Order: sequence, then structure tokens, then C-alpha cells
Amino acid sequence: MRITVLAGGIGGARFLAGLRTLGHDITVIGNNGDDVTLFGLRICPDLDTVMYTLGGGISADRGWGREDETFRVRDDIGAYVAASGTDDLPSWFGLGDLDLATHLVRAHWLAEGLPLSVITARLCARWEPGVRLLPSTDDPVETHVTLAAGERVHFQEWWVRLHAAVPATGFELAGASGASPAPGVLDAIAGADVVVLPPSNPVVSVGTILAVPGIREAVAASAAPVVGVSPIIGGAPVRGMADACLAAIGVETSAYAVAHHYRDLLDGWLVDETDKDDADRLNEDGLLARAVPLWMTDLDTTARLAGAVLTLAADVRQ
Amino acid sequence: MRITVLAGGIGGARFLAGLRTLGHDITVIGNNGDDVTLFGLRICPDLDTVMYTLGGGISADRGWGREDETFRVRDDIGAYVAASGTDDLPSWFGLGDLDLATHLVRAHWLAEGLPLSVITARLCARWEPGVRLLPSTDDPVETHVTLAAGERVHFQEWWVRLHAAVPATGFELAGASGASPAPGVLDAIAGADVVVLPPSNPVVSVGTILAVPGIREAVAASAAPVVGVSPIIGGAPVRGMADACLAAIGVETSAYAVAHHYRDLLDGWLVDETDKDDADRLNEDGLLARAVPLWMTDLDTTARLAGAVLTLAADVRQ
Repeated sequence: MRITVLAGGIGGARFLAGLRTLGHDITVIGNNGDDVTLFGLRICPDLDTVMYTLGGGISADRGWGREDETFRVRDDIGAYVAASGTDDLPSWFGLGDLDLATHLVRAHWLAEGLPLSVITARLCARWEPGVRLLPSTDDPVETHVTLAAGERVHFQEWWVRLHAAVPATGFELAGASGASPAPGVLDAIAGADVVVLPPSNPVVSVGTILAVPGIREAVAASAAPVVGVSPIIGGAPVRGMADACLAAIGVETSAYAVAHHYRDLLDGWLVDETDKDDADRLNEDGLLARAVPLWMTDLDTTARLAGAVLTLAADVRQ
Repeated sequence: MRITVLAGGIGGARFLAGLRTLGHDITVIGNNGDDVTLFGLRICPDLDTVMYTLGGGISADRGWGREDETFRVRDDIGAYVAASGTDDLPSWFGLGDLDLATHLVRAHWLAEGLPLSVITARLCARWEPGVRLLPSTDDPVETHVTLAAGERVHFQEWWVRLHAAVPATGFELAGASGASPAPGVLDAIAGADVVVLPPSNPVVSVGTILAVPGIREAVAASAAPVVGVSPIIGGAPVRGMADACLAAIGVETSAYAVAHHYRDLLDGWLVDETDKDDADRLNEDGLLARAVPLWMTDLDTTARLAGAVLTLAADVRQ
């Protein structure tokens, strides 16, 4: 079965690890909203998280970055920050030494003029993730956040440096108007047997993938069932700070509200058993919804969740 | 006394460490011919060697790069090289982890639009080299080498990757025609009490500094004595592969021949005691030359050599 997944970082990657055990032909459309240029290097955190997670290189503790990581480069940059007396160096971003190797190789190939999709495939030649990993677009895009005070900052600055603690009032995928889907993306959606929205951040992960012109339209037009997994359990994000993102766009932090946020695309929706009431309400609203265990505590539970997604998709088709 | 030194990498940096102990006002005009863009990062090896050496951060064993260095990033890049099956990644360049911090900080400030001279001063705020270190130019330049077969390669590719073992037929400072001296360079030459050509490579270090339009003319026009130290002892380079460079431009590898190579600029020249005959011949040719111990085996001998340079300059003035 051909399964196309619109995945952000940690949550999407973990879901994919479970899905992969079921043995299908999986294409992942990765999120480029988190992309950022730091120290002259283009960094694609969500693509890397998927690649490292599925390639066995992810830090199990952190969920992002590399296992057996060290931070000698970052610490030495700190000595420059201290001596320079300026705070214009983005030393708040957690650049690990091994992770840097990926960024440097990507920078070299970008400087050679290779598109990000080709570079991603080349990086994956090392990691062998067992899925086809595509960026949402080869064009440079990145999420900018409007803060309550009116200031606009890069998503990473809000997320990592400010810990999403400063209220946001909006998100924009800067560069989107001039961007088009990377080669293979629209075909992967049109040719899928199932399109999955995994438990990734609906605003700054799945939302920014859908913000690349043509992708939302392709998902909406897909003949295949589009099924999603709630990233919200019991009114709180499974991980990360999705609540801060949802609040900014006026969406309640609930499994029910996120389903409605996706309503024009969705054919089916999984919520956690805790949120069975949300599933009942959604079914009353006319969306096929089901309550199953959503916590991806290990590979087995995650594989069962992925199986529930495919069952839901099959039931949509009936 | 205001002393201006046109310095390359290791030899120049060691000489400067000795000169600095004599307590003068020293300006260093560094070589940018070695500069190279690798993995999207602009790397300035000679500036860094001077900065690290005088700032106490140099690897004592290697003479370049950082003390207590590790190579985790480079080794991890190697895993990408192995998996990609391509050899287009410049993994032959010895990028240390701590050294990378310097390159990343420089890349960040370059991306902000700061000129290299300002960036170099900011980097030096950490290292406090005790001299004013200026790049020869803020404009991007780099030495290209013509190989006997006609191919042109970057200097670093010839020097580091090919170990200068492939015969060269010429050197060109690419970008020189559009380059001008960095702020402060011409003033440092015009206002110097002594201009020193230390035992750096006459072709690809001092030669490339002089190739920035205006610098050679400023040295030639300087009212101050211009004195040099032979980088050749007993017919062989003190360090590095200057013989391969000299051969390419048709200059014999001898203290005598290098003095004649600089003849339009020089007022005085120091050769090693081994090369006393060369000094005698140069004196007959009308150049004040003197034979003294040139081996910079430790800081004391280097300081004595620097003292001999200043004595020679004083004698030129008589």
C-alpha cells in the first residue's frame, strides 16, 4: 500500500517508526517551516529528525539531534559570544558536533546548486530511513511568528530561544508565495492509497507543509482517504508547545477542535481513549472518528496506533 | 616603534611571537591567498594561524589549528562521503571541531554583511593576540594554481589534497583585480618605522599579500626600511613546500635567489649562518645582508632573530 505522510519533527518521526514496521511503501513529505539559516548554514531540523529517527541515529533522550552527541563547537562559539560583547550570534540554537556534519554537507551541496530534494535523498543514502523522504518544497521557506507586541521573529527564535513563552498572534510561512512543491510531492499525494496527518503540530508542522501552494489543494483533491491522529491528548499537547500555536490562531487545544481545524481535508480522525467524548461529538458532526490509545510509548504501541490509522482508512473506504 | 609585518601562516606567526616579546606596536597584514570556501564557510587559514598562535590557542604539535582539537565533525562527514559514493565533498581539508567554531562565527558575521577586517578584529577580541591583525583585503581573493597539465585548482587543493606533489607552473590571486587593501593596510605600511617580510612563503604568502593592488606599491614607496628573513635555509624551505612554489615561478630555492625575488622592495635581508656565502654575494650585489641563526626553535631564539631584524633595519637607516 502506498502511504503518504505529512510529518513534522519528533511526533511525526516516532509515528513513522511504528508505521514502517507494517511494511508499506511510505513517502514522507517533511516540514520546512522550521528551516533556518544559522552561521551561514541552512538547517532543516524536521527533515533531519525524521532521517535520524528512522536511520537509528537520533538521540533517544532528546528526541532530536544525534545520539552520542557532543557540543564542543557550540561551547567554543560561546567563548566568542562572551568576548565579543554582542548578542548577535545565535548561540541559543543547540548545534551538536555530529549534527553539524549534516548541516555542513547540506551547505556544500546547496552551494553546488543542488536542490534540497536531491540533497535530502543523498543524505538519506547514509541513513537508509526505509521511507522516501521529500521536503515539502525545494524553495527556501521558513515560518515567521508575529508576537503580541507586533514584532516578527523566526519560528526557531520564538520556539527555542523564547520557549514559546511570549504570546504569538500569528504564523506565516515566509517565502511560500514563491514556492512550489518539491518534485514528487504532488504525485505522492495523488498516487497515495492513504494520506496520513500524524500527531505533528497542526500549525507549525502540518500547517506549514499545507501552506506550500498546491499541497493543501492536492490533499483536498486526493481520492485516497485522509486520516489523522490527534496531537492533543486530554486537552494538552503530547509533546512540544502546540497549545501556544493553537491559541495564536484561535483554535482550542482539544482533539475535537484540531479535527475541525483540518475539517476540509479529513476523512477520519483518531483521538486518545481519554478523549472519547471528542470522538463521539465528531461522529455526530459527520466525521468518522475513533478513540484508541495514542501514547507512542514504545515501538509496539506505535505500530498498533499506525495499524489503527490504516484500519480507519479502510473503514473510510467502505 | 611601529612595525608592520606581512605574514603568512606558521612561519610568520612564530616570528611574530618572538617579535612581540620586544614590546613594539605591531601591525600584521595577513595573507588571504589561502582563503577557501568549504561547506559554505569562508575559511581564512593564515589569519587564524596568526590569531591562534599569538592568542595561545594554536596546536603546538601541528602548528596550525587548535590545541586540544578533536575531529568528530570531519569524521562524521566521512560517513556521508562513504555513503554518497561521490568524491565532491572536500573531506580532505582538516576541519577541527574547535576550529569550526571560528569558521561558523566568521560565516555568521559575513552573512550579516560585516567586512572581513571588522570580523577579524572581533575574533581577536577573544584571542587578544597583542598585535593589530588585518587581512590584506576585505574582498574575496584566493590563490589558484595552474598545474603542469594545464588544470587550475584552488591552492588548498594543491597544497593539502595533492601535497604540492603535482608540479605547478604558476600562481594567480583570483579576485585580485577587483580587490583593494583592507582599511588600515596602506596606512600601516606608510606609517611604519620598519616593514618586515618574515620567513613566510615568498610566493603564496608574502607574494599574494603583495598581489593585492596597492600593497606592493605602498611597500616600495615606504620611507621605512623594508627588511626580510629568508624562508630558505641551506637550500631548503624551513617548513612547508616553498621549493615547489619557487620552482613553479622559476626562482631557485636559495636564500640568495629569494632576496633577488624581493629585490625591488628590500633594504636588508637576513640569511642563516649556513648561507653566509649568500649574504656575501648579496652584499656584493648592493643589498645589506647578514647571516644570523634563523631557526626559530623556541621563543628565545625567535626573539633574538626578531632583534636581529630590528638591528638590521636600524643599520639600513644609518
